[in-house]
Amino acid sequence: MPNSFGHVFRITTWGESHGPGIGVVIDGCPPLLPITVAEIQAELDRRRPGQSEITTPRKEADVVEVLSGLYEGKTTGTPIALLVRNTDQRSSAYAEMKQAFRPSHADFTYQSKFGVRDPNGGGRSSARETIGRVAAGAIARKILAHAGGVEVRAFVTRIHDIAAPAEALTAFPSLAEVEASPVRCPHPATAAAMVERIKAVRSDGDSVGGVIECRIRNVPVGLGEPVFDRLEADLAKAMLSLPATKGFELGSGFAGSLLKGSQHNDLFENRDGRVRTATNNSGGVQGGISNGEEIVFRVAFKPTATILQAQKTVDLEGNPTELMGKGRHDPCVVPRAVVIVEAMAALVLLDHWMRQSAQNRTFQF
Amino acid sequence: MPNSFGHVFRITTWGESHGPGIGVVIDGCPPLLPITVAEIQAELDRRRPGQSEITTPRKEADVVEVLSGLYEGKTTGTPIALLVRNTDQRSSAYAEMKQAFRPSHADFTYQSKFGVRDPNGGGRSSARETIGRVAAGAIARKILAHAGGVEVRAFVTRIHDIAAPAEALTAFPSLAEVEASPVRCPHPATAAAMVERIKAVRSDGDSVGGVIECRIRNVPVGLGEPVFDRLEADLAKAMLSLPATKGFELGSGFAGSLLKGSQHNDLFENRDGRVRTATNNSGGVQGGISNGEEIVFRVAFKPTATILQAQKTVDLEGNPTELMGKGRHDPCVVPRAVVIVEAMAALVLLDHWMRQSAQNRTFQF
Amino acid sequence: MPNSFGHVFRITTWGESHGPGIGVVIDGCPPLLPITVAEIQAELDRRRPGQSEITTPRKEADVVEVLSGLYEGKTTGTPIALLVRNTDQRSSAYAEMKQAFRPSHADFTYQSKFGVRDPNGGGRSSARETIGRVAAGAIARKILAHAGGVEVRAFVTRIHDIAAPAEALTAFPSLAEVEASPVRCPHPATAAAMVERIKAVRSDGDSVGGVIECRIRNVPVGLGEPVFDRLEADLAKAMLSLPATKGFELGSGFAGSLLKGSQHNDLFENRDGRVRTATNNSGGVQGGISNGEEIVFRVAFKPTATILQAQKTVDLEGNPTELMGKGRHDPCVVPRAVVIVEAMAALVLLDHWMRQSAQNRTFQF
Amino acid sequence: MPNSFGHVFRITTWGESHGPGIGVVIDGCPPLLPITVAEIQAELDRRRPGQSEITTPRKEADVVEVLSGLYEGKTTGTPIALLVRNTDQRSSAYAEMKQAFRPSHADFTYQSKFGVRDPNGGGRSSARETIGRVAAGAIARKILAHAGGVEVRAFVTRIHDIAAPAEALTAFPSLAEVEASPVRCPHPATAAAMVERIKAVRSDGDSVGGVIECRIRNVPVGLGEPVFDRLEADLAKAMLSLPATKGFELGSGFAGSLLKGSQHNDLFENRDGRVRTATNNSGGVQGGISNGEEIVFRVAFKPTATILQAQKTVDLEGNPTELMGKGRHDPCVVPRAVVIVEAMAALVLLDHWMRQSAQNRTFQF
Repeated sequence: MPNSFGHVFRITTWGESHGPGIGVVIDGCPPLLPITVAEIQAELDRRRPGQSEITTPRKEADVVEVLSGLYEGKTTGTPIALLVRNTDQRSSAYAEMKQAFRPSHADFTYQSKFGVRDPNGGGRSSARETIGRVAAGAIARKILAHAGGVEVRAFVTRIHDIAAPAEALTAFPSLAEVEASPVRCPHPATAAAMVERIKAVRSDGDSVGGVIECRIRNVPVGLGEPVFDRLEADLAKAMLSLPATKGFELGSGFAGSLLKGSQHNDLFENRDGRVRTATNNSGGVQGGISNGEEIVFRVAFKPTATILQAQKTVDLEGNPTELMGKGRHDPCVVPRAVVIVEAMAALVLLDHWMRQSAQNRTFQF
Repeated sequence: MPNSFGHVFRITTWGESHGPGIGVVIDGCPPLLPITVAEIQAELDRRRPGQSEITTPRKEADVVEVLSGLYEGKTTGTPIALLVRNTDQRSSAYAEMKQAFRPSHADFTYQSKFGVRDPNGGGRSSARETIGRVAAGAIARKILAHAGGVEVRAFVTRIHDIAAPAEALTAFPSLAEVEASPVRCPHPATAAAMVERIKAVRSDGDSVGGVIECRIRNVPVGLGEPVFDRLEADLAKAMLSLPATKGFELGSGFAGSLLKGSQHNDLFENRDGRVRTATNNSGGVQGGISNGEEIVFRVAFKPTATILQAQKTVDLEGNPTELMGKGRHDPCVVPRAVVIVEAMAALVLLDHWMRQSAQNRTFQF
Repeated sequence: MPNSFGHVFRITTWGESHGPGIGVVIDGCPPLLPITVAEIQAELDRRRPGQSEITTPRKEADVVEVLSGLYEGKTTGTPIALLVRNTDQRSSAYAEMKQAFRPSHADFTYQSKFGVRDPNGGGRSSARETIGRVAAGAIARKILAHAGGVEVRAFVTRIHDIAAPAEALTAFPSLAEVEASPVRCPHPATAAAMVERIKAVRSDGDSVGGVIECRIRNVPVGLGEPVFDRLEADLAKAMLSLPATKGFELGSGFAGSLLKGSQHNDLFENRDGRVRTATNNSGGVQGGISNGEEIVFRVAFKPTATILQAQKTVDLEGNPTELMGKGRHDPCVVPRAVVIVEAMAALVLLDHWMRQSAQNRTFQF
Repeated sequence: MPNSFGHVFRITTWGESHGPGIGVVIDGCPPLLPITVAEIQAELDRRRPGQSEITTPRKEADVVEVLSGLYEGKTTGTPIALLVRNTDQRSSAYAEMKQAFRPSHADFTYQSKFGVRDPNGGGRSSARETIGRVAAGAIARKILAHAGGVEVRAFVTRIHDIAAPAEALTAFPSLAEVEASPVRCPHPATAAAMVERIKAVRSDGDSVGGVIECRIRNVPVGLGEPVFDRLEADLAKAMLSLPATKGFELGSGFAGSLLKGSQHNDLFENRDGRVRTATNNSGGVQGGISNGEEIVFRVAFKPTATILQAQKTVDLEGNPTELMGKGRHDPCVVPRAVVIVEAMAALVLLDHWMRQSAQNRTFQF
């Protein structure tokens, strides 16, 4: 259950960073969807390590194998099992970490909760777990695209204190604009500065975080299930389930609480022949249900916990010690996290679409 | 399902703002807990309208009736059903609203999703729905208090642009400090200014939002289920499932992304005979699991959507019209929301405690 | 969770036999269904005690109140809460039973599991709990009837050793035929003998059980979710969740295991312009999925545990004692259980219909 | 969801008969359980085809690979992924079956539900799917054995019309007694006759079914969650989720409805220093909760649908045709199903044990 997500389009991920492999089972995928391994692989390639000069040098091809659920190039409605073998495992790098808890990592809490942990590369707490999410997200995105051209686009708006100017990000960025820079910020000048900052902190053995914005357009009105499974509630859960996230905000977000109601309210108008709002402080969701405007949310990521500096900590017995970060790590996870944010957003949206269909479209009275 | 929350300690709420009543069914409450109706009523009294000069004048005693699940003053392990009858229903105030969509309300999305809605007082989208959450939360909090003195304390840190100074909020506030002001900010000078601001916007027929911080102390290490049901993920979902919320952040939150890893990491140390962290940027959760430090999170609330000013909108046919807010509403929902935030936090924590117990303590090898 | 049933059309029941009341919350009901309180009450009247000379003399009008989820005579898609107050409570009849465990009742197991139980009338283990199921089933049946005329009909085929002749039950019985006798066997001669048998065992202070058959016609092809949520698996669970049930069989059932494959297989043929089977040993389900034939299953009920005879048992301390049945009980629960079997069958079918719709009809490729 | 089973100890199976492989993900396994691949393989060997002269000659070694969840020979509390590659795939045997629906198979219903199916060897509807259940069951059984010596033992009591005498099956059979014959009936004389019957029907190109009884001993009092998740309800669902099953009965079962209450009631007595029942018509469950007596249930299996005889059917367009069974099939699935029944029973029991622990043992008041 804790390793499953979604109600109708439901995924279950498994696998440790340095175990035999990582995978996902997708239950509830509609039948007859044409999908190729290459389409899934393409998203994994956007996520995989070693893709650019600002990511970890860990080499993993992350080649996906489809074990079930497809027949003659189409989904059959049965579970889709996907497997990615781990190949570049250097457990020796983690020998020291077996004996002490890395600061701001999951070592201490896993050890305390389970009484045991796989110390190699963080085991299950490694971001490699998100491989399964991205693979499943690739399928979800294809379905959404088919269903009226729903597009999910995430991009980096801030790295450390380098932020893209708000006015540069008003339009819905194209995929090409996002992918133009390894940092995945669609504003070229800002992107260049971000890359330099990441290189600089890496050379210091340090790390930085940042903020990702995600927008979804062509969303039908009516997705989201009040009262607990509001669309923004499930988006928030999805985002806070990602490693290194510290915050989520929808539409006007935290800044919206600085406005008065007369400023914040999104007035309805008749535009393009349908009910629209003049502004979008709501971020595309009202009363927990999509209103047809762009869904807009932002996610805050903390700086990578692993740094190549000596840090004070304690060992398994609680005695003071020092630990020097080793292994191959991203000095900033935010650019690669763009792909993961998109995948999770797609999973939330698709699942809600199918839920909405079940209750409100199965029978017409 | 959309009206249920929790896995082991599971609540299901029902009821519309101006229907016969509001209620909740609690499934999975441990047996033999001594609990009185008065203890539940006390939390409802903190939530109910008309409790102070800065809340809605709607008069609702919100008297709770226990319909099942108790025997001789103790829980029996069977479902606890709680009912609060609605009494102060003035549906006439909503006649005009049947014909047009209130801006930034759920009228349009409910109508679009379901093809129908109860227009009286917002029906199911009304914040009266949270009565059931608060009643269930009262029971959850009693269990948590019993279990090692876990305390959940929320309070207002900002209303509009009036914020309590950070240095005034370092200590865990007492309930008395929070309840000392109707605005529920434990810093008296700030609280007084907040009250004045709320009165001022109300006299303008306008509204304001703000930020609530919630802290939980004496939390055992080990609560939270990676990878999707991380403690912060479920807290985020719980908070974003509340009306009028726009954001959630844990520990260092959005500001944490401005730090470098070397500044942000919480170094482990041996303090008070156990493993502690020197700082708490993690907000009490690492790798999705509580680490025994205070859980600290903040929730952003938008300004109340209902304002007593004429606003442009459209009618059910999509034609432009104007709507003047009526009914009796809070110019700022944040002070009353403190109680609801506490209730939801308690529900998340208790449910995770019981889940942790099932997997990790049922059998010992 | 244990008090909830269904995934999309989901019910949660609550209430004790001699507590303030009994109720149900229905979550996921499609919007815009016209439904009246009278339609729900009609099914409750078929279930309620005191309806005929062969049932318990306990007088309960079982009047249902709708607390939420309806607006102007139609469902709104929000939770429907239904309440039935208990009125005829004679707890004094149960004083003795607080001190000893009634044989083959739930007294001992509830006490052992929870450490406490409401001893009045069996508390939560009473068949009064099924009031909520029947009320919810009334709504489910109306939806099914609307959707292509699906009909659910249960009836008694055996009481003690008095069985209706198989050849008398080949046609789908009408509701009038079933309701013609208080014992709800559509074969008049058998029904008369059954009534006499029940009267006879009652005069002896004894009890009997029997078998109910349920058939569902006009079922669409495709309901049921392999592999764990097969249609027959969920029907089996639904039936075995009813008090006093000891067995379930589908189609050919236990007797089917006496046939060879060449005798048992249902050959496909083209009949009425669609694919049909020549026989129906499958009972309308193949591979866990409805095949469009009549769904046919049978449920075995044990004799009522409460008998008006002295029986050996033990008290709360485990000491031997005797207990004489008191209270007002059915000498045979089977006739009233017909209504409950129909309700549960309708709930299973409707929930699967909505699930099927979500996965297989939301998107067309 | 439809491919998942259990709430706390939750399994998800995937894979088609002639696809790349079959597998299972186990979520919620307690940490620190010592378990070897050999222990899992041993149960798979009991299930695999080709193990004796009366099973299918299909050769599958069914070698299991552990992909995650173990560290240094112990479980870690993270998901355990198990993979069995398919090796002996002769899809050519199924060419004809692509064009017509095999009688009493899932071909027609899968095609109708999903609009597509993998016709090779039945795809997902093949009994090969149960490999995942048996592998997970092996782990569940080890946990149960550790926890107070709970033993699950299934065995064949009837094949076609050859039944073991009731008096020969009163004692709890040992594993050796069950495994002494390939037909897994612990009564040697009956077993020999069963083997002959199976050989005889196979030589006729026909098939037979039968009945399996399952007993579980050393069960703690208190497992089972009223009202919908009664222990017998979940056992019934588990058994009816197996291919070819047509019925389930607990304790006295269908025959119990022929007794009077005075004969059927299980009188309580103080035996061995604890509360016991003099008889066990209840089959170890009362009010949905285990009472500490042996859990006893029986499952009916229909004759194998695939027979090596020409049978009338229709093709994909609904036109009449004939189909001659091909492929390599068991003339009787019942002996191999013994292992699967045990696995499912263990999964139900373990999941309920963990659920019981969560609600009733996490907190003590």
